Amino acid sequence: MKKGSGLFVTFEGGEGAGKTTLIKSLHEYLNSLNKQVLSTFEPGDSEFGKSIRDTLLFAEEAMPSESEFFLYLADRAYHVENMILPALEKDVVVLCDRFTDSSVAYQGAGRQFVSLERIEEMSLVSTKGLSPDMTFLLDIEPAKALLRLKGKKDRLESENIAFHERVREGYLTLAAENPHRIIVLDAEKSKEELFKQAKDHLDSFLVKAGVK
Amino acid sequence: MKKGSGLFVTFEGGEGAGKTTLIKSLHEYLNSLNKQVLSTFEPGDSEFGKSIRDTLLFAEEAMPSESEFFLYLADRAYHVENMILPALEKDVVVLCDRFTDSSVAYQGAGRQFVSLERIEEMSLVSTKGLSPDMTFLLDIEPAKALLRLKGKKDRLESENIAFHERVREGYLTLAAENPHRIIVLDAEKSKEELFKQAKDHLDSFLVKAGVK
Repeated sequence: MKKGSGLFVTFEGGEGAGKTTLIKSLHEYLNSLNKQVLSTFEPGDSEFGKSIRDTLLFAEEAMPSESEFFLYLADRAYHVENMILPALEKDVVVLCDRFTDSSVAYQGAGRQFVSLERIEEMSLVSTKGLSPDMTFLLDIEPAKALLRLKGKKDRLESENIAFHERVREGYLTLAAENPHRIIVLDAEKSKEELFKQAKDHLDSFLVKAGVK
Repeated sequence: MKKGSGLFVTFEGGEGAGKTTLIKSLHEYLNSLNKQVLSTFEPGDSEFGKSIRDTLLFAEEAMPSESEFFLYLADRAYHVENMILPALEKDVVVLCDRFTDSSVAYQGAGRQFVSLERIEEMSLVSTKGLSPDMTFLLDIEPAKALLRLKGKKDRLESENIAFHERVREGYLTLAAENPHRIIVLDAEKSKEELFKQAKDHLDSFLVKAGVK
Protein backbone atom coordinates (compact mmCIF):
# COMPACT_ATOMS: atom_id res chain seq x y z
CA MET A 1 0.00 0.00 0.00
CA LYS A 2 1.23 3.48 -0.87
CA LYS A 3 1.79 5.30 2.39
CA GLY A 4 2.44 8.94 1.56
CA SER A 5 5.80 10.53 2.21
CA GLY A 6 5.80 10.51 6.02
CA LEU A 7 8.39 8.51 7.92
CA PHE A 8 7.22 5.54 9.97
CA VAL A 9 9.47 4.68 12.93
CA THR A 10 8.66 1.95 15.44
CA PHE A 11 10.13 1.18 18.88
CA GLU A 12 10.43 -2.34 20.18
CA GLY A 13 11.82 -4.11 23.20
CA GLY A 14 10.88 -5.78 26.44
CA GLU A 15 8.96 -4.19 29.31
CA GLY A 16 10.99 -1.53 31.14
CA ALA A 17 13.54 -1.08 28.33
CA GLY A 18 12.93 2.68 28.13
CA LYS A 19 10.90 3.06 24.91
CA THR A 20 8.59 5.75 26.31
CA THR A 21 11.46 8.04 27.38
CA LEU A 22 13.27 7.66 24.05
CA ILE A 23 10.12 8.40 22.04
CA LYS A 24 9.51 11.57 24.06
CA SER A 25 13.06 12.85 23.44
CA LEU A 26 12.93 12.08 19.71
CA HIS A 27 9.51 13.71 19.42
CA GLU A 28 10.92 16.94 20.92
CA TYR A 29 13.99 16.75 18.72
CA LEU A 30 11.93 16.33 15.54
CA ASN A 31 9.68 19.21 16.57
CA SER A 32 12.82 21.35 16.95
CA LEU A 33 13.52 20.58 13.27
CA ASN A 34 10.02 21.88 12.45
CA LYS A 35 8.72 18.44 11.60
CA GLN A 36 5.19 17.39 12.39
CA VAL A 37 5.27 14.33 14.66
CA LEU A 38 2.66 11.86 15.89
CA SER A 39 3.68 9.71 18.87
CA THR A 40 1.37 6.77 19.31
CA PHE A 41 1.35 3.28 20.75
CA GLU A 42 -0.29 -0.09 20.62
CA PRO A 43 -2.30 -1.75 21.85
CA GLY A 44 -4.98 0.77 22.48
CA ASP A 45 -4.35 4.33 21.29
CA SER A 46 -8.05 4.90 20.37
CA GLU A 47 -11.44 4.43 22.01
CA PHE A 48 -11.79 1.13 20.16
CA GLY A 49 -8.28 0.12 21.19
CA LYS A 50 -8.77 1.05 24.84
CA SER A 51 -11.45 -1.58 25.34
CA ILE A 52 -9.24 -4.15 23.61
CA ARG A 53 -6.25 -3.10 25.73
CA ASP A 54 -8.27 -3.53 28.93
CA THR A 55 -9.39 -6.99 27.87
CA LEU A 56 -5.87 -7.94 26.87
CA LEU A 57 -3.88 -6.75 29.83
CA PHE A 58 -6.25 -7.20 32.74
CA ALA A 59 -8.48 -10.12 31.75
CA GLU A 60 -9.47 -12.17 34.78
CA GLU A 61 -9.74 -15.52 33.04
CA ALA A 62 -7.06 -17.49 31.25
CA MET A 63 -6.98 -16.40 27.63
CA PRO A 64 -5.87 -18.66 24.77
CA SER A 65 -2.72 -17.41 23.02
CA GLU A 66 -4.74 -17.34 19.80
CA SER A 67 -7.29 -14.90 21.26
CA GLU A 68 -4.56 -12.64 22.57
CA PHE A 69 -2.86 -12.61 19.17
CA PHE A 70 -6.03 -11.86 17.20
CA LEU A 71 -7.04 -9.06 19.58
CA TYR A 72 -3.67 -7.38 18.93
CA LEU A 73 -4.24 -7.73 15.19
CA ALA A 74 -7.76 -6.26 15.43
CA ASP A 75 -6.36 -3.28 17.33
CA ARG A 76 -3.46 -2.87 14.88
CA ALA A 77 -5.73 -2.88 11.83
CA TYR A 78 -7.83 -0.13 13.40
CA HIS A 79 -4.73 1.85 14.40
CA VAL A 80 -3.17 1.62 10.93
CA GLU A 81 -6.34 2.62 9.08
CA ASN A 82 -7.53 5.40 11.36
CA MET A 83 -4.31 6.95 12.74
CA ILE A 84 -1.05 5.83 11.12
CA LEU A 85 -1.91 5.88 7.41
CA PRO A 86 -3.76 9.25 7.57
CA ALA A 87 -0.73 10.79 9.37
CA LEU A 88 1.79 9.36 6.88
CA GLU A 89 -0.31 10.72 4.02
CA LYS A 90 0.10 14.20 5.53
CA ASP A 91 3.93 13.82 5.68
CA VAL A 92 3.89 13.44 9.46
CA VAL A 93 6.69 11.48 11.17
CA VAL A 94 4.99 8.69 13.09
CA LEU A 95 6.74 7.31 16.20
CA CYS A 96 4.95 4.14 17.26
CA ASP A 97 5.56 2.27 20.51
CA ARG A 98 5.29 -1.39 19.42
CA PHE A 99 4.13 -2.76 16.06
CA THR A 100 4.27 -6.07 14.14
CA ASP A 101 7.67 -7.09 15.59
CA SER A 102 5.96 -7.26 18.99
CA SER A 103 3.57 -9.89 17.65
CA VAL A 104 6.43 -11.98 16.32
CA ALA A 105 8.44 -11.65 19.55
CA TYR A 106 5.63 -11.97 22.14
CA GLN A 107 3.04 -14.17 20.45
CA GLY A 108 5.41 -16.06 18.16
CA ALA A 109 8.63 -16.57 20.14
CA GLY A 110 7.04 -16.04 23.57
CA ARG A 111 3.83 -18.08 23.32
CA GLN A 112 4.97 -20.45 20.57
CA PHE A 113 1.46 -21.47 19.47
CA VAL A 114 2.19 -21.17 15.77
CA SER A 115 5.28 -20.61 13.57
CA LEU A 116 6.92 -17.18 13.34
CA GLU A 117 6.28 -17.17 9.58
CA ARG A 118 2.52 -17.59 10.08
CA ILE A 119 2.56 -14.80 12.68
CA GLU A 120 4.31 -12.49 10.20
CA GLU A 121 1.90 -13.38 7.37
CA MET A 122 -1.17 -12.72 9.51
CA SER A 123 0.34 -9.51 10.88
CA LEU A 124 0.78 -8.19 7.35
CA VAL A 125 -2.95 -8.71 6.73
CA SER A 126 -3.65 -6.51 9.75
CA THR A 127 -1.38 -3.68 8.48
CA LYS A 128 -2.57 -3.83 4.84
CA GLY A 129 1.08 -4.50 3.99
CA LEU A 130 2.49 -1.44 5.84
CA SER A 131 5.98 -1.97 7.32
CA PRO A 132 8.08 0.48 9.35
CA ASP A 133 10.80 2.47 7.57
CA MET A 134 12.99 2.14 10.64
CA THR A 135 12.78 0.29 13.95
CA PHE A 136 14.71 0.87 17.17
CA LEU A 137 15.03 -2.27 19.26
CA LEU A 138 15.93 -1.47 22.87
CA ASP A 139 17.69 -4.61 23.97
CA ILE A 140 18.26 -5.47 27.62
CA GLU A 141 18.43 -8.59 29.79
CA PRO A 142 14.87 -9.25 30.98
CA ALA A 143 15.94 -9.69 34.62
CA LYS A 144 17.43 -6.19 34.63
CA ALA A 145 14.53 -4.57 32.78
CA LEU A 146 11.88 -6.08 35.03
CA LEU A 147 13.61 -4.57 38.08
CA ARG A 148 12.84 -1.14 36.62
CA LEU A 149 9.07 -1.65 36.53
CA LYS A 150 7.11 0.04 39.27
CA GLY A 151 3.55 -0.45 40.47
CA LYS A 152 1.04 -3.09 39.46
CA LYS A 153 2.24 -5.42 36.73
CA ASP A 154 -0.10 -6.22 33.88
CA ARG A 155 -0.66 -9.71 32.53
CA LEU A 156 2.29 -9.73 30.13
CA GLU A 157 4.71 -8.18 32.58
CA SER A 158 3.82 -10.89 35.11
CA GLU A 159 4.91 -13.73 32.82
CA ASN A 160 7.91 -15.71 34.06
CA ILE A 161 11.47 -14.86 33.15
CA ALA A 162 11.75 -17.74 30.64
CA PHE A 163 8.92 -16.15 28.64
CA HIS A 164 10.74 -12.81 28.55
CA GLU A 165 13.98 -14.55 27.55
CA ARG A 166 12.20 -16.14 24.59
CA VAL A 167 10.76 -12.73 23.63
CA ARG A 168 14.25 -11.22 23.68
CA GLU A 169 15.61 -14.03 21.49
CA GLY A 170 12.69 -13.49 19.10
CA TYR A 171 13.56 -9.82 18.80
CA LEU A 172 17.27 -10.51 18.22
CA THR A 173 16.39 -13.06 15.51
CA LEU A 174 14.21 -10.45 13.78
CA ALA A 175 17.05 -7.92 14.01
CA ALA A 176 19.49 -10.38 12.43
CA GLU A 177 17.02 -11.00 9.60
CA ASN A 178 16.29 -7.29 9.02
CA PRO A 179 19.64 -5.51 9.53
CA HIS A 180 18.69 -2.53 7.35
CA ARG A 181 15.43 -1.81 9.14
CA ILE A 182 16.09 -2.78 12.76
CA ILE A 183 18.70 -0.88 14.79
CA VAL A 184 19.61 -2.60 18.05
CA LEU A 185 20.39 -0.21 20.92
CA ASP A 186 21.88 -1.29 24.24
CA ALA A 187 19.15 -0.29 26.67
CA GLU A 188 21.49 -0.46 29.65
CA LYS A 189 23.05 2.78 28.44
CA SER A 190 21.90 6.11 29.97
CA LYS A 191 18.84 7.77 28.46
CA GLU A 192 21.08 10.58 27.14
CA GLU A 193 23.32 8.10 25.36
CA LEU A 194 20.33 6.20 23.93
CA PHE A 195 18.85 9.43 22.62
CA LYS A 196 22.16 10.44 21.02
CA GLN A 197 22.53 7.09 19.24
CA ALA A 198 18.94 7.06 18.04
CA LYS A 199 19.14 10.71 16.90
CA ASP A 200 22.30 9.96 14.85
CA HIS A 201 20.59 7.05 13.08
CA LEU A 202 17.49 9.14 12.46
CA ASP A 203 19.58 12.03 11.08
CA SER A 204 21.39 9.72 8.66
CA PHE A 205 18.09 8.30 7.53
CA LEU A 206 16.58 11.74 6.96
CA VAL A 207 19.64 12.85 4.97
CA LYS A 208 19.50 9.68 2.83
CA ALA A 209 15.79 10.15 2.31
CA GLY A 210 16.54 13.71 1.21
CA VAL A 211 14.30 15.32 3.82
CA LYS A 212 17.00 16.95 5.97
CA MET B 1 -6.36 -31.81 17.33
CA LYS B 2 -8.08 -34.83 18.88
CA LYS B 3 -11.52 -33.70 19.88
CA GLY B 4 -13.03 -36.49 21.95
CA SER B 5 -15.99 -38.47 20.72
CA GLY B 6 -18.67 -35.78 20.86
CA LEU B 7 -20.40 -34.66 17.68
CA PHE B 8 -19.81 -31.11 16.49
CA VAL B 9 -22.65 -29.67 14.38
CA THR B 10 -22.70 -26.08 13.11
CA PHE B 11 -25.51 -23.98 11.65
CA GLU B 12 -24.90 -21.38 8.99
CA GLY B 13 -26.91 -19.02 6.85
CA GLY B 14 -27.92 -15.42 6.45
CA GLU B 15 -29.73 -13.28 9.01
CA GLY B 16 -33.34 -14.35 9.50
CA ALA B 17 -32.88 -17.79 7.95
CA GLY B 18 -34.21 -19.61 11.02
CA LYS B 19 -31.09 -21.07 12.63
CA THR B 20 -32.19 -20.38 16.21
CA THR B 21 -35.53 -22.20 15.83
CA LEU B 22 -33.92 -25.20 14.17
CA ILE B 23 -31.23 -25.49 16.85
CA LYS B 24 -33.86 -25.40 19.58
CA SER B 25 -35.87 -28.25 17.96
CA LEU B 26 -32.81 -30.41 17.39
CA HIS B 27 -31.61 -29.79 20.94
CA GLU B 28 -34.95 -31.10 22.28
CA TYR B 29 -34.89 -34.04 19.90
CA LEU B 30 -31.37 -35.07 20.95
CA ASN B 31 -32.34 -34.74 24.61
CA SER B 32 -35.25 -37.09 23.92
CA LEU B 33 -32.62 -39.64 22.74
CA ASN B 34 -30.88 -39.20 26.12
CA LYS B 35 -27.95 -37.37 24.58
CA GLN B 36 -26.19 -34.57 26.36
CA VAL B 37 -26.37 -31.43 24.23
CA LEU B 38 -24.72 -28.01 24.37
CA SER B 39 -26.32 -25.29 22.24
CA THR B 40 -24.01 -22.34 21.78
CA PHE B 41 -23.34 -19.49 19.38
CA GLU B 42 -20.77 -17.06 18.17
CA PRO B 43 -19.80 -14.33 18.46
CA GLY B 44 -20.05 -13.92 22.18
CA ASP B 45 -21.29 -16.92 24.19
CA SER B 46 -19.00 -16.07 27.18
CA GLU B 47 -18.17 -13.01 29.30
CA PHE B 48 -15.10 -12.45 27.16
CA GLY B 49 -17.13 -12.88 24.00
CA LYS B 50 -19.93 -10.56 25.12
CA SER B 51 -17.64 -7.54 25.18
CA ILE B 52 -16.32 -8.50 21.74
CA ARG B 53 -19.86 -9.00 20.44
CA ASP B 54 -20.90 -5.55 21.66
CA THR B 55 -17.89 -3.95 19.99
CA LEU B 56 -18.54 -5.87 16.79
CA LEU B 57 -22.24 -5.36 16.33
CA PHE B 58 -22.86 -1.93 17.79
CA ALA B 59 -19.57 -0.04 17.25
CA GLU B 60 -20.24 3.65 16.60
CA GLU B 61 -17.25 4.29 14.37
CA ALA B 62 -16.43 2.74 11.03
CA MET B 63 -14.42 -0.40 11.64
CA PRO B 64 -11.86 -1.78 9.15
CA SER B 65 -12.84 -5.19 7.75
CA GLU B 66 -9.56 -6.53 9.13
CA SER B 67 -10.45 -5.52 12.70
CA GLU B 68 -13.88 -7.09 12.38
CA PHE B 69 -12.37 -10.33 11.10
CA PHE B 70 -9.70 -10.58 13.81
CA LEU B 71 -12.23 -9.86 16.58
CA TYR B 72 -14.31 -12.81 15.35
CA LEU B 73 -11.20 -15.00 15.39
CA ALA B 74 -10.27 -13.88 18.92
CA ASP B 75 -13.76 -14.77 20.09
CA ARG B 76 -13.72 -18.10 18.26
CA ALA B 77 -10.38 -19.16 19.76
CA TYR B 78 -11.76 -18.47 23.24
CA HIS B 79 -15.01 -20.27 22.47
CA VAL B 80 -13.25 -23.36 21.08
CA GLU B 81 -10.79 -23.66 23.97
CA ASN B 82 -13.14 -22.93 26.85
CA MET B 83 -16.51 -24.32 25.70
CA ILE B 84 -16.51 -26.44 22.56
CA LEU B 85 -13.45 -28.67 23.08
CA PRO B 86 -14.26 -29.42 26.77
CA ALA B 87 -17.82 -30.41 25.78
CA LEU B 88 -16.67 -32.63 22.91
CA GLU B 89 -14.22 -34.34 25.25
CA LYS B 90 -17.17 -35.29 27.46
CA ASP B 91 -19.06 -36.84 24.48
CA VAL B 92 -21.54 -33.96 24.38
CA VAL B 93 -23.26 -33.10 21.09
CA VAL B 94 -22.40 -29.46 20.39
CA LEU B 95 -24.84 -27.41 18.28
CA CYS B 96 -23.14 -24.15 17.34
CA ASP B 97 -24.84 -21.18 15.69
CA ARG B 98 -22.16 -19.91 13.26
CA PHE B 99 -18.54 -21.02 13.00
CA THR B 100 -15.65 -20.71 10.51
CA ASP B 101 -17.93 -20.81 7.43
CA SER B 102 -19.38 -17.49 8.64
CA SER B 103 -15.93 -15.92 8.43
CA VAL B 104 -15.45 -17.16 4.88
CA ALA B 105 -18.93 -16.03 3.80
CA TYR B 106 -19.17 -12.68 5.63
CA GLN B 107 -15.58 -11.47 5.87
CA GLY B 108 -14.27 -13.25 2.79
CA ALA B 109 -17.07 -13.17 0.21
CA GLY B 110 -18.93 -10.24 1.81
CA ARG B 111 -16.12 -7.80 2.65
CA GLN B 112 -13.63 -9.07 0.06
CA PHE B 113 -10.53 -7.61 1.80
CA VAL B 114 -8.43 -10.75 1.37
CA SER B 115 -8.75 -14.06 -0.49
CA LEU B 116 -11.08 -16.81 0.75
CA GLU B 117 -8.09 -19.15 1.09
CA ARG B 118 -6.30 -16.77 3.48
CA ILE B 119 -9.51 -16.40 5.50
CA GLU B 120 -9.77 -20.19 5.79
CA GLU B 121 -6.10 -20.56 6.80
CA MET B 122 -6.34 -17.91 9.50
CA SER B 123 -9.65 -19.33 10.75
CA LEU B 124 -8.01 -22.71 11.23
CA VAL B 125 -5.40 -21.08 13.49
CA SER B 126 -8.25 -19.75 15.65
CA THR B 127 -9.88 -23.20 15.99
CA LYS B 128 -6.62 -25.12 16.60
CA GLY B 129 -7.58 -27.12 13.53
CA LEU B 130 -11.06 -28.09 14.75
CA SER B 131 -13.66 -28.48 11.95
CA PRO B 132 -17.37 -29.33 12.28
CA ASP B 133 -18.46 -32.92 11.69
CA MET B 134 -21.61 -31.67 10.03
CA THR B 135 -22.95 -28.27 8.98
CA PHE B 136 -26.50 -27.23 8.13
CA LEU B 137 -26.64 -24.29 5.74
CA LEU B 138 -30.06 -22.61 5.80
CA ASP B 139 -30.24 -21.06 2.38
CA ILE B 140 -32.71 -18.32 1.47
CA GLU B 141 -32.82 -15.25 -0.78
CA PRO B 142 -31.51 -12.33 1.31
CA ALA B 143 -34.45 -10.07 0.36
CA LYS B 144 -36.91 -12.63 1.78
CA ALA B 145 -34.87 -13.35 4.91
CA LEU B 146 -34.39 -9.69 5.80
CA LEU B 147 -38.16 -9.16 5.74
CA ARG B 148 -38.39 -11.60 8.66
CA LEU B 149 -36.16 -9.56 10.97
CA LYS B 150 -37.91 -7.55 13.64
CA GLY B 151 -36.68 -4.72 15.84
CA LYS B 152 -33.40 -2.86 15.72
CA LYS B 153 -30.96 -4.15 13.14
CA ASP B 154 -27.32 -4.61 14.15
CA ARG B 155 -24.40 -3.47 12.01
CA LEU B 156 -24.21 -6.62 9.86
CA GLU B 157 -27.96 -6.85 9.33
CA SER B 158 -27.97 -3.25 8.12
CA GLU B 159 -25.55 -3.91 5.25
CA ASN B 160 -27.00 -3.46 1.79
CA ILE B 161 -28.60 -6.27 -0.18
CA ALA B 162 -25.56 -6.67 -2.49
CA PHE B 163 -23.45 -7.54 0.57
CA HIS B 164 -25.95 -10.21 1.64
CA GLU B 165 -26.07 -11.58 -1.92
CA ARG B 166 -22.27 -11.99 -1.87
CA VAL B 167 -22.50 -13.71 1.53
CA ARG B 168 -25.06 -16.17 0.13
CA GLU B 169 -22.85 -16.92 -2.90
CA GLY B 170 -19.91 -17.45 -0.53
CA TYR B 171 -21.92 -19.99 1.45
CA LEU B 172 -23.08 -21.84 -1.68
CA THR B 173 -19.47 -22.00 -2.94
CA LEU B 174 -18.40 -23.51 0.37
CA ALA B 175 -21.23 -26.04 0.17
CA ALA B 176 -20.18 -27.06 -3.36
CA GLU B 177 -16.60 -27.54 -2.14
CA ASN B 178 -17.60 -29.52 0.98
CA PRO B 179 -20.53 -31.70 -0.12
CA HIS B 180 -19.94 -34.32 2.58
CA ARG B 181 -19.89 -31.86 5.45
CA ILE B 182 -22.33 -29.11 4.44
CA ILE B 183 -26.02 -29.93 4.00
CA VAL B 184 -27.98 -27.20 2.24
CA LEU B 185 -31.56 -26.79 3.48
CA ASP B 186 -34.18 -24.63 1.76
CA ALA B 187 -34.97 -22.10 4.49
CA GLU B 188 -38.21 -21.06 2.80
CA LYS B 189 -39.71 -24.36 3.96
CA SER B 190 -41.80 -24.44 7.15
CA LYS B 191 -39.97 -24.87 10.45
CA GLU B 192 -41.54 -28.34 10.81
CA GLU B 193 -40.22 -29.40 7.41
CA LEU B 194 -36.75 -27.97 8.14
CA PHE B 195 -36.63 -29.85 11.42
CA LYS B 196 -37.68 -33.10 9.74
CA GLN B 197 -35.01 -32.81 7.05
CA ALA B 198 -32.26 -31.87 9.55
CA LYS B 199 -33.35 -34.67 11.91
CA ASP B 200 -33.16 -37.26 9.11
CA HIS B 201 -29.61 -36.16 8.20
CA LEU B 202 -28.57 -36.19 11.84
CA ASP B 203 -30.08 -39.67 12.37
CA SER B 204 -28.17 -41.07 9.37
CA PHE B 205 -24.99 -39.51 10.67
CA LEU B 206 -25.50 -40.98 14.15
CA VAL B 207 -26.18 -44.43 12.71
CA LYS B 208 -23.07 -44.23 10.50
CA ALA B 209 -20.98 -43.06 13.46
CA GLY B 210 -22.31 -46.03 15.40
CA VAL B 211 -23.79 -43.95 18.19
CA LYS B 212 -27.48 -44.59 17.53
